[in-house]
Amino acid sequence: MKLIRFGEPGKEKIGVQIDGKSYDVSAFGGDYTEDFFANNGLARLDEFVKANEGKLIEIPNDVRLGAPFARPSKIVCIGLNYKDHAAETNSPIPAEPIIFMKSTSSLVGPNDNVTIPRNSEKTDWEVEFGIVIGKKASYVEESEALDYVAGYVLHNDVSERAFQLERGGTWDKGKGCDTFAPMGPILTTQDEIPDINNVRLWLKVNGKTYQDGNTSNLIFSVQHIISYVSQFMTLLPGDVISTGTPAGVGLGFNPPIYLKPGDTIELGADYLGVQKQEVVAYSGK
Amino acid sequence: MKLIRFGEPGKEKIGVQIDGKSYDVSAFGGDYTEDFFANNGLARLDEFVKANEGKLIEIPNDVRLGAPFARPSKIVCIGLNYKDHAAETNSPIPAEPIIFMKSTSSLVGPNDNVTIPRNSEKTDWEVEFGIVIGKKASYVEESEALDYVAGYVLHNDVSERAFQLERGGTWDKGKGCDTFAPMGPILTTQDEIPDINNVRLWLKVNGKTYQDGNTSNLIFSVQHIISYVSQFMTLLPGDVISTGTPAGVGLGFNPPIYLKPGDTIELGADYLGVQKQEVVAYSGK
Repeated sequence: MKLIRFGEPGKEKIGVQIDGKSYDVSAFGGDYTEDFFANNGLARLDEFVKANEGKLIEIPNDVRLGAPFARPSKIVCIGLNYKDHAAETNSPIPAEPIIFMKSTSSLVGPNDNVTIPRNSEKTDWEVEFGIVIGKKASYVEESEALDYVAGYVLHNDVSERAFQLERGGTWDKGKGCDTFAPMGPILTTQDEIPDINNVRLWLKVNGKTYQDGNTSNLIFSVQHIISYVSQFMTLLPGDVISTGTPAGVGLGFNPPIYLKPGDTIELGADYLGVQKQEVVAYSGK
Repeated sequence: MKLIRFGEPGKEKIGVQIDGKSYDVSAFGGDYTEDFFANNGLARLDEFVKANEGKLIEIPNDVRLGAPFARPSKIVCIGLNYKDHAAETNSPIPAEPIIFMKSTSSLVGPNDNVTIPRNSEKTDWEVEFGIVIGKKASYVEESEALDYVAGYVLHNDVSERAFQLERGGTWDKGKGCDTFAPMGPILTTQDEIPDINNVRLWLKVNGKTYQDGNTSNLIFSVQHIISYVSQFMTLLPGDVISTGTPAGVGLGFNPPIYLKPGDTIELGADYLGVQKQEVVAYSGK
């Protein structure tokens, strides 16, 4: 299945995408929350969709999309998980996964504006392959890790490099600004992706390709990451782990290239769809 | 007011503490969630309590307490915010606040067990003064910061030092393990604390005092912290900012002293009550 959420921010309804068309399934009830994933929601929704085949109402193409799940309990990110990206940022290859966290208040829809924070001069892009957890995961073995996955999602891990690297403390300061986590358009369930460690992902700014990677080049695989993170914290249904970005971020250029108001970001991944964001200046509350 | 939550983990009911006695206010409805704080819940609850004076049902003393609010969207922490603690960890005084994040899945009640994670050898304690946000806060001025506060809470910022400092990446890896955030027993509303920058806080392990500090020694004040964090991320109602720990953590001793199964931790702060935790080994799922 491919899950979507659509409508005004904070008032999204649930839907599904079938053969490229989007349908309203709000009659199923509820939202794609922790409870939905925890209580076998994917299987129940699948039954609902099959039982209502031909009767679901199609959603117009121009409707706003939200993130394809409700705000999760946490967004955990893996840093420097592609060799070429570690190299471009002059960082050593990590001996074990680097974990940081993104404030969940940064979550927005896939095509919402990306706002450059006040006093920011180094807002950067990062296309990422995100894992959506399907059931409570604590001390999970790598061999069983995929049993804990609901599906996958495209994520632009927008990052303010000065906040992240030059302001003291952890990276979290430059990762959780409002609008810094566009996710979607779809949550693609695991059964629809033949090999999660072979997914191409790319990103363009103003039409020019900057990132073009593949999860086959992940230093730490999807299975390893799930197992690893679950040694340090319990992952809850609906939680997201973003697996890192390939080379081609603005920080990697000499001189670096950062986002400015008016820029357009487009990104995509096999099986996960395409996002498009306009970059805007912060303009008050 | 002093808010409490009581009952089984995950099924807590809401209550208030008045003159040292605890009362069930579940008839008020709902829980102490983001919505509660956002929708003037404190003022409405105050009216409810006054309207029901003498009619509220007292809660037995031996009931389990949960954290005094529902799981927040985020727990933001300030690192090295007391000079004596920076010194004992051989860290420089930060030029600006250090931010890290604690997984909200680590939140537990004030007297619940603290579990030493699997493969941990360096689980440590940290008594902290926590801020509970009362309304959405973005780019808040220091002079107006307290307008955004619901109240304050005692927090044991339990930390695994090897995970935090020796495993690569950010501190988050050693801060968000399950049971690493005992909070409570009470959320004390702001009006009940005459000077938040003069609150004594202390911690004992097995009856011996290890920490005895005062928020008057914070490098960055409560007001400054709220304003500062709100420059990087929007704080939502119910979110917690933990303001840092004074000297006396296990890491600061030579050789360091870490928690072991069977230890008892007691901690407290003026106006915020007392916590008591038993330390236990991880024993499977």
